[in-house]
Amino acid sequence: MARATAAEATTTSSERILAAATSAFAELGFRGTTTRDIAARAGMSPTAMYVHHRSKEELLYAISLVGHQRLLAAIQEASAQGVTPTQRLGSVALTFGAWHAERNVQARVVNYELLALTPEHYGEVAQLRHGIDTVFRSIVAAGVATGEFDVDDVSMTCVSLASLGVDISRWFRSDGEWSTEQVAAHYRDNALRIVGARGQAGSAARE
Amino acid sequence: MARATAAEATTTSSERILAAATSAFAELGFRGTTTRDIAARAGMSPTAMYVHHRSKEELLYAISLVGHQRLLAAIQEASAQGVTPTQRLGSVALTFGAWHAERNVQARVVNYELLALTPEHYGEVAQLRHGIDTVFRSIVAAGVATGEFDVDDVSMTCVSLASLGVDISRWFRSDGEWSTEQVAAHYRDNALRIVGARGQAGSAARE
Repeated sequence: MARATAAEATTTSSERILAAATSAFAELGFRGTTTRDIAARAGMSPTAMYVHHRSKEELLYAISLVGHQRLLAAIQEASAQGVTPTQRLGSVALTFGAWHAERNVQARVVNYELLALTPEHYGEVAQLRHGIDTVFRSIVAAGVATGEFDVDDVSMTCVSLASLGVDISRWFRSDGEWSTEQVAAHYRDNALRIVGARGQAGSAARE
Repeated sequence: MARATAAEATTTSSERILAAATSAFAELGFRGTTTRDIAARAGMSPTAMYVHHRSKEELLYAISLVGHQRLLAAIQEASAQGVTPTQRLGSVALTFGAWHAERNVQARVVNYELLALTPEHYGEVAQLRHGIDTVFRSIVAAGVATGEFDVDDVSMTCVSLASLGVDISRWFRSDGEWSTEQVAAHYRDNALRIVGARGQAGSAARE
Protein backbone atom coordinates (compact mmCIF):
# COMPACT_ATOMS: atom_id res chain seq x y z
CA MET A 1 0.00 0.00 0.00
CA ALA A 2 2.77 2.48 0.84
CA ARG A 3 5.43 0.87 -1.33
CA ALA A 4 7.64 3.36 -3.12
CA THR A 5 6.29 4.55 -6.46
CA ALA A 6 8.27 6.11 -9.30
CA ALA A 7 7.31 9.58 -8.08
CA GLU A 8 8.77 8.85 -4.68
CA ALA A 9 12.02 7.53 -6.04
CA THR A 10 13.59 10.96 -5.77
CA THR A 11 13.19 11.10 -1.99
CA THR A 12 16.10 9.83 0.04
CA SER A 13 16.09 6.37 1.58
CA SER A 14 15.99 7.91 5.03
CA GLU A 15 12.89 9.95 4.20
CA ARG A 16 11.23 6.88 2.70
CA ILE A 17 11.92 4.87 5.84
CA LEU A 18 10.51 7.60 8.09
CA ALA A 19 7.35 7.89 5.97
CA ALA A 20 6.96 4.10 5.96
CA ALA A 21 7.45 3.89 9.74
CA THR A 22 4.92 6.70 10.30
CA SER A 23 2.22 4.95 8.27
CA ALA A 24 2.97 1.57 9.87
CA PHE A 25 2.95 2.93 13.45
CA ALA A 26 -0.30 4.84 12.82
CA GLU A 27 -2.01 1.78 11.35
CA LEU A 28 -0.60 -1.08 13.43
CA GLY A 29 0.63 0.70 16.56
CA PHE A 30 4.30 0.83 17.55
CA ARG A 31 4.24 -2.56 19.25
CA GLY A 32 2.22 -4.13 16.45
CA THR A 33 4.78 -3.07 13.82
CA THR A 34 7.82 -5.16 12.87
CA THR A 35 10.99 -3.85 11.24
CA ARG A 36 10.01 -6.06 8.31
CA ASP A 37 6.65 -4.20 7.99
CA ILE A 38 8.51 -0.90 7.74
CA ALA A 39 11.05 -2.19 5.22
CA ALA A 40 8.23 -3.59 3.03
CA ARG A 41 6.37 -0.26 3.08
CA ALA A 42 9.61 1.57 2.23
CA GLY A 43 10.24 -0.86 -0.63
CA MET A 44 13.61 -2.04 0.65
CA SER A 45 15.15 -5.04 2.39
CA PRO A 46 15.41 -5.12 6.21
CA THR A 47 19.19 -5.19 5.76
CA ALA A 48 19.20 -2.06 3.59
CA MET A 49 16.98 -0.36 6.17
CA TYR A 50 19.34 -1.28 8.99
CA VAL A 51 22.04 0.92 7.43
CA HIS A 52 19.87 4.00 8.09
CA HIS A 53 18.11 3.22 11.36
CA ARG A 54 19.11 0.77 14.01
CA SER A 55 15.81 0.17 15.74
CA LYS A 56 12.06 0.78 15.67
CA GLU A 57 12.40 3.00 18.75
CA GLU A 58 14.97 5.16 16.98
CA LEU A 59 12.50 5.67 14.14
CA LEU A 60 9.72 6.56 16.56
CA TYR A 61 12.07 8.99 18.30
CA ALA A 62 13.01 10.68 15.00
CA ILE A 63 9.33 11.00 14.01
CA SER A 64 8.32 12.32 17.44
CA LEU A 65 11.19 14.78 17.69
CA VAL A 66 10.74 16.33 14.25
CA GLY A 67 6.94 16.35 14.60
CA HIS A 68 7.02 18.22 17.90
CA GLN A 69 9.79 20.60 16.79
CA ARG A 70 7.86 21.63 13.67
CA LEU A 71 4.54 22.02 15.51
CA LEU A 72 6.17 24.14 18.22
CA ALA A 73 7.89 26.38 15.64
CA ALA A 74 4.63 26.75 13.68
CA ILE A 75 2.55 27.86 16.67
CA GLN A 76 5.29 30.19 17.96
CA GLU A 77 5.25 31.86 14.55
CA ALA A 78 1.43 31.95 14.56
CA SER A 79 1.42 33.51 18.03
CA ALA A 80 3.76 36.29 16.83
CA GLN A 81 1.31 37.17 14.06
CA GLY A 82 -1.27 38.52 16.50
CA VAL A 83 -1.14 41.54 18.82
CA THR A 84 -3.97 41.03 21.31
CA PRO A 85 -4.43 37.73 23.19
CA THR A 86 -7.62 37.12 21.17
CA GLN A 87 -5.76 37.55 17.88
CA ARG A 88 -2.87 35.43 19.09
CA LEU A 89 -5.12 32.59 20.29
CA GLY A 90 -7.11 32.73 17.05
CA SER A 91 -3.93 32.48 14.99
CA VAL A 92 -2.36 29.73 17.11
CA ALA A 93 -5.59 27.69 17.16
CA LEU A 94 -5.96 27.93 13.39
CA THR A 95 -2.40 26.59 12.95
CA PHE A 96 -2.72 23.95 15.67
CA GLY A 97 -6.06 22.69 14.32
CA ALA A 98 -4.87 22.60 10.71
CA TRP A 99 -1.69 20.72 11.72
CA HIS A 100 -3.64 17.94 13.46
CA ALA A 101 -6.10 17.63 10.56
CA GLU A 102 -3.64 17.84 7.68
CA ARG A 103 -0.99 15.63 9.29
CA ASN A 104 -3.40 13.35 11.12
CA VAL A 105 -1.38 10.18 10.45
CA GLN A 106 1.83 11.70 11.82
CA ALA A 107 -0.08 13.34 14.68
CA ARG A 108 -1.56 10.02 15.80
CA VAL A 109 1.92 8.50 16.03
CA VAL A 110 3.32 11.56 17.78
CA ASN A 111 0.51 11.70 20.36
CA TYR A 112 -0.49 8.09 20.93
CA GLU A 113 2.84 6.22 20.88
CA LEU A 114 4.77 8.51 23.24
CA LEU A 115 5.07 5.92 26.00
CA ALA A 116 6.95 3.53 23.71
CA LEU A 117 9.94 5.94 23.69
CA THR A 118 12.91 5.23 25.96
CA PRO A 119 12.80 7.37 29.13
CA GLU A 120 15.63 9.54 27.76
CA HIS A 121 13.91 10.16 24.43
CA TYR A 122 10.58 10.67 26.18
CA GLY A 123 12.20 13.34 28.33
CA GLU A 124 13.37 15.26 25.26
CA VAL A 125 9.94 15.10 23.62
CA ALA A 126 8.24 16.07 26.90
CA GLN A 127 10.28 19.29 26.91
CA LEU A 128 8.95 20.17 23.47
CA ARG A 129 5.40 19.38 24.64
CA HIS A 130 6.02 21.68 27.57
CA GLY A 131 7.04 24.36 25.06
CA ILE A 132 3.75 23.90 23.20
CA ASP A 133 1.82 24.20 26.48
CA THR A 134 3.78 27.37 27.26
CA VAL A 135 2.57 29.02 24.04
CA PHE A 136 -1.08 28.38 25.01
CA ARG A 137 -0.44 29.30 28.64
CA SER A 138 1.21 32.64 27.92
CA ILE A 139 -1.65 33.70 25.65
CA VAL A 140 -4.40 32.59 28.04
CA ALA A 141 -2.67 34.25 31.00
CA ALA A 142 -2.24 37.46 28.98
CA GLY A 143 -5.93 37.40 28.03
CA VAL A 144 -6.95 36.97 31.66
CA ALA A 145 -4.63 39.85 32.66
CA THR A 146 -6.10 42.25 30.08
CA GLY A 147 -9.65 41.11 30.89
CA GLU A 148 -10.23 39.86 27.34
CA PHE A 149 -10.64 36.26 28.55
CA ASP A 150 -12.79 34.86 31.33
CA VAL A 151 -10.98 31.79 32.69
CA ASP A 152 -11.03 30.37 36.22
CA ASP A 153 -8.31 27.75 35.89
CA VAL A 154 -5.61 28.60 33.33
CA SER A 155 -3.97 25.15 33.54
CA MET A 156 -7.16 23.19 32.96
CA THR A 157 -8.22 25.52 30.17
CA CYS A 158 -4.86 25.05 28.42
CA VAL A 159 -5.19 21.26 28.69
CA SER A 160 -8.68 21.53 27.14
CA LEU A 161 -7.45 23.71 24.28
CA ALA A 162 -4.62 21.32 23.39
CA SER A 163 -6.86 18.29 23.92
CA LEU A 164 -9.56 19.47 21.51
CA GLY A 165 -6.86 20.04 18.87
CA VAL A 166 -5.00 16.76 19.41
CA ASP A 167 -8.18 14.70 19.13
CA ILE A 168 -8.77 16.05 15.61
CA SER A 169 -6.04 13.62 14.53
CA ARG A 170 -8.10 10.70 15.88
CA TRP A 171 -11.34 11.41 14.00
CA PHE A 172 -10.36 13.54 10.98
CA ARG A 173 -9.77 11.92 7.59
CA SER A 174 -8.89 13.99 4.52
CA ASP A 175 -11.48 12.16 2.40
CA GLY A 176 -14.27 12.99 4.88
CA GLU A 177 -17.05 15.55 4.57
CA TRP A 178 -15.07 18.52 5.96
CA SER A 179 -11.92 20.23 4.71
CA THR A 180 -8.84 20.91 6.82
CA GLU A 181 -9.71 24.63 6.67
CA GLN A 182 -13.26 24.09 7.93
CA VAL A 183 -12.10 21.94 10.82
CA ALA A 184 -9.33 24.38 11.76
CA ALA A 185 -11.73 27.37 11.66
CA HIS A 186 -14.26 25.53 13.83
CA TYR A 187 -11.54 24.58 16.31
CA ARG A 188 -10.41 28.22 16.47
CA ASP A 189 -13.99 29.37 17.17
CA ASN A 190 -14.34 26.74 19.89
CA ALA A 191 -11.01 27.82 21.41
CA LEU A 192 -12.19 31.45 21.60
CA ARG A 193 -15.45 30.33 23.19
CA ILE A 194 -13.66 28.10 25.71
CA VAL A 195 -11.58 31.04 26.99
CA GLY A 196 -14.71 33.24 27.04
CA ALA A 197 -13.13 35.77 24.67
CA ARG A 198 -15.20 38.96 24.95
CA GLY A 199 -17.34 39.63 21.90
CA GLN A 200 -16.44 36.14 20.66
CA ALA A 201 -18.75 34.02 22.75
CA GLY A 202 -21.75 34.57 20.50
CA SER A 203 -22.12 34.44 16.77
CA ALA A 204 -19.32 37.01 16.36
CA ALA A 205 -16.85 34.14 16.77
CA ARG A 206 -18.25 32.41 13.70
CA GLU A 207 -17.31 33.67 10.30
CA MET B 1 1.23 -6.17 37.43
CA ALA B 2 -2.38 -7.12 36.72
CA ARG B 3 -2.08 -10.72 37.96
CA ALA B 4 -5.04 -11.87 40.02
CA THR B 5 -4.76 -11.00 43.70
CA ALA B 6 -6.66 -12.64 46.56
CA ALA B 7 -9.26 -9.88 46.45
CA GLU B 8 -9.95 -10.58 42.83
CA ALA B 9 -10.33 -14.31 43.28
CA THR B 10 -14.08 -13.94 43.74
CA THR B 11 -14.60 -12.50 40.25
CA THR B 12 -15.41 -14.98 37.52
CA SER B 13 -12.76 -16.20 35.09
CA SER B 14 -14.53 -14.42 32.27
CA GLU B 15 -14.46 -11.10 34.11
CA ARG B 16 -10.78 -11.60 34.93
CA ILE B 17 -9.97 -12.26 31.28
CA LEU B 18 -11.86 -9.16 30.13
CA ALA B 19 -10.10 -6.99 32.71
CA ALA B 20 -6.72 -8.48 31.72
CA ALA B 21 -7.41 -7.92 28.01
CA THR B 22 -8.50 -4.33 28.66
CA SER B 23 -5.29 -3.49 30.52
CA ALA B 24 -3.13 -5.27 27.93
CA PHE B 25 -4.80 -3.61 24.93
CA ALA B 26 -4.58 -0.17 26.58
CA GLU B 27 -0.89 -0.60 27.38
CA LEU B 28 0.42 -2.58 24.40
CA GLY B 29 -2.20 -1.86 21.73
CA PHE B 30 -4.42 -4.59 20.25
CA ARG B 31 -1.82 -5.68 17.70
CA GLY B 32 1.02 -5.51 20.23
CA THR B 33 -0.81 -7.87 22.62
CA THR B 34 -0.54 -11.67 22.45
CA THR B 35 -3.05 -14.15 23.86
CA ARG B 36 -0.23 -15.20 26.16
CA ASP B 37 0.04 -11.59 27.53
CA ILE B 38 -3.66 -11.65 28.40
CA ALA B 39 -3.53 -15.08 30.02
CA ALA B 40 -0.53 -14.00 32.14
CA ARG B 41 -2.33 -10.86 33.32
CA ALA B 42 -5.43 -12.92 34.13
CA GLY B 43 -3.28 -15.40 36.06
CA MET B 44 -4.27 -18.41 33.99
CA SER B 45 -2.87 -20.64 31.26
CA PRO B 46 -3.55 -19.83 27.58
CA THR B 47 -5.42 -23.14 27.40
CA ALA B 48 -7.69 -22.26 30.33
CA MET B 49 -8.34 -18.90 28.71
CA TYR B 50 -9.26 -20.49 25.41
CA VAL B 51 -12.28 -22.13 27.08
CA HIS B 52 -13.79 -18.67 27.66
CA HIS B 53 -12.73 -16.67 24.63
CA ARG B 54 -11.64 -17.94 21.28
CA SER B 55 -9.66 -14.98 19.97
CA LYS B 56 -8.19 -11.60 20.78
CA GLU B 57 -10.69 -9.97 18.45
CA GLU B 58 -13.58 -11.57 20.31
CA LEU B 59 -12.26 -10.06 23.53
CA LEU B 60 -11.91 -6.62 21.92
CA TYR B 61 -15.44 -6.95 20.59
CA ALA B 62 -16.82 -7.85 24.03
CA ILE B 63 -14.99 -4.91 25.64
CA SER B 64 -16.09 -2.48 22.93
CA LEU B 65 -19.71 -3.62 22.92
CA VAL B 66 -20.22 -3.48 26.69
CA GLY B 67 -18.28 -0.21 26.97
CA HIS B 68 -20.39 1.54 24.35
CA GLN B 69 -23.68 0.07 25.62
CA ARG B 70 -23.02 1.30 29.17
CA LEU B 71 -21.88 4.75 28.06
CA LEU B 72 -24.93 5.17 25.83
CA ALA B 73 -27.30 4.07 28.64
CA ALA B 74 -25.57 6.42 31.11
CA ILE B 75 -25.86 9.51 28.92
CA GLN B 76 -29.45 8.71 27.92
CA GLU B 77 -30.29 8.59 31.62
CA ALA B 78 -28.35 11.81 32.24
CA SER B 79 -30.19 13.53 29.41
CA ALA B 80 -33.55 12.59 30.94
CA GLN B 81 -32.55 14.27 34.20
CA GLY B 82 -32.68 17.76 32.68
CA VAL B 83 -35.62 19.71 31.30
CA THR B 84 -34.09 22.54 29.26
CA PRO B 85 -31.40 21.89 26.63
CA THR B 86 -28.90 23.68 28.88
CA GLN B 87 -29.72 21.42 31.83
CA ARG B 88 -29.67 18.32 29.62
CA LEU B 89 -26.32 19.18 28.03
CA GLY B 90 -24.85 19.99 31.46
CA SER B 91 -26.02 16.66 32.84
CA VAL B 92 -24.88 14.63 29.80
CA ALA B 93 -21.48 16.36 29.70
CA LEU B 94 -20.87 15.72 33.39
CA THR B 95 -21.59 12.00 32.87
CA PHE B 96 -19.65 11.76 29.60
CA GLY B 97 -16.62 13.56 31.06
CA ALA B 98 -16.61 11.51 34.27
CA TRP B 99 -16.89 8.27 32.29
CA HIS B 100 -13.81 9.04 30.17
CA ALA B 101 -11.79 10.13 33.21
CA GLU B 102 -12.80 7.37 35.61
CA ARG B 103 -12.62 4.56 33.04
CA ASN B 104 -9.74 6.02 31.05
CA VAL B 105 -8.06 2.62 30.48
CA GLN B 106 -11.25 1.05 29.11
CA ALA B 107 -12.06 4.23 27.16
CA ARG B 108 -8.68 4.19 25.40
CA VAL B 109 -9.29 0.64 24.20
CA VAL B 110 -12.86 1.41 23.17
CA ASN B 111 -11.90 4.54 21.22
CA TYR B 112 -8.44 3.82 19.83
CA GLU B 113 -8.65 0.14 18.82
CA LEU B 114 -11.95 0.29 16.93
CA LEU B 115 -10.38 -0.42 13.55
CA ALA B 116 -9.03 -3.76 14.75
CA LEU B 117 -12.61 -5.12 14.96
CA THR B 118 -13.96 -7.29 12.15
CA PRO B 119 -16.19 -5.29 9.75
CA GLU B 120 -19.28 -6.99 11.21
CA HIS B 121 -18.34 -6.20 14.81
CA TYR B 122 -17.28 -2.70 13.83
CA GLY B 123 -20.72 -2.16 12.29
CA GLU B 124 -22.45 -3.09 15.54
CA VAL B 125 -20.24 -0.76 17.59
CA ALA B 126 -20.66 2.02 15.04
CA GLN B 127 -24.42 1.87 15.59
CA LEU B 128 -23.91 2.43 19.32
CA ARG B 129 -21.57 5.34 18.56
CA HIS B 130 -24.27 6.75 16.31
CA GLY B 131 -26.64 6.47 19.28
CA ILE B 132 -24.22 8.47 21.43
CA ASP B 133 -23.98 11.13 18.73
CA THR B 134 -27.78 11.23 18.57
CA VAL B 135 -27.99 12.13 22.27
CA PHE B 136 -25.69 15.14 21.75
CA ARG B 137 -27.34 16.06 18.47
CA SER B 138 -30.91 16.08 19.82
CA ILE B 139 -29.89 18.32 22.72
CA VAL B 140 -27.89 20.76 20.58
CA ALA B 141 -30.66 20.94 17.97
CA ALA B 142 -33.25 21.54 20.72
CA GLY B 143 -31.08 24.32 22.19
CA VAL B 144 -30.76 25.98 18.79
CA ALA B 145 -34.54 25.71 18.29
CA THR B 146 -35.34 27.36 21.64
CA GLY B 147 -32.66 29.99 21.10
CA GLU B 148 -30.74 28.89 24.21
CA PHE B 149 -27.72 27.84 22.14
CA ASP B 150 -25.87 29.74 19.45
CA VAL B 151 -24.49 27.15 17.01
CA ASP B 152 -23.85 27.51 13.29
CA ASP B 153 -23.06 23.89 12.43
CA VAL B 154 -24.78 21.34 14.66
CA SER B 155 -22.81 18.38 13.22
CA MET B 156 -19.39 19.95 13.73
CA THR B 157 -20.34 21.15 17.20
CA CYS B 158 -21.45 17.63 18.17
CA VAL B 159 -18.15 16.19 16.91
CA SER B 160 -16.29 18.78 19.01
CA LEU B 161 -18.30 18.01 22.15
CA ALA B 162 -17.67 14.25 21.87
CA SER B 163 -14.04 14.82 20.87
CA LEU B 164 -13.22 16.95 23.92
CA GLY B 165 -14.70 14.23 26.14
CA VAL B 166 -13.04 11.27 24.41
CA ASP B 167 -9.59 12.87 24.61
CA ILE B 168 -9.85 13.03 28.42
CA SER B 169 -9.10 9.29 28.31
CA ARG B 170 -5.78 10.00 26.55
CA TRP B 171 -4.37 12.48 29.04
CA PHE B 172 -6.19 11.84 32.33
CA ARG B 173 -4.62 9.64 35.00
CA SER B 174 -6.32 9.02 38.35
CA ASP B 175 -3.08 9.71 40.24
CA GLY B 176 -2.66 13.13 38.59
CA GLU B 177 -3.30 16.57 40.03
CA TRP B 178 -7.04 16.74 39.23
CA SER B 179 -9.94 14.58 40.40
CA THR B 180 -12.47 12.93 38.10
CA GLU B 181 -15.10 15.39 39.43
CA GLN B 182 -12.95 18.44 38.64
CA VAL B 183 -12.24 17.26 35.12
CA ALA B 184 -15.90 16.37 34.48
CA ALA B 185 -17.09 19.76 35.79
CA HIS B 186 -14.56 21.60 33.63
CA TYR B 187 -15.60 19.58 30.59
CA ARG B 188 -19.26 20.43 31.27
CA ASP B 189 -18.43 24.14 31.50
CA ASN B 190 -16.47 23.95 28.23
CA ALA B 191 -19.38 22.12 26.57
CA LEU B 192 -21.81 24.89 27.60
CA ARG B 193 -19.39 27.52 26.30
CA ILE B 194 -18.90 25.68 23.00
CA VAL B 195 -22.64 25.70 22.29
CA GLY B 196 -22.82 29.36 23.35
CA ALA B 197 -25.39 28.60 26.06
CA ARG B 198 -26.99 31.93 27.01
CA GLY B 199 -25.93 33.20 30.39
CA GLN B 200 -23.33 30.44 30.47
CA ALA B 201 -20.68 31.92 28.25
CA GLY B 202 -19.17 34.07 30.98
CA SER B 203 -18.24 33.25 34.54
CA ALA B 204 -21.78 32.01 35.23
CA ALA B 205 -20.79 28.69 33.65
CA ARG B 206 -18.11 28.17 36.28
CA GLU B 207 -19.07 27.03 39.71
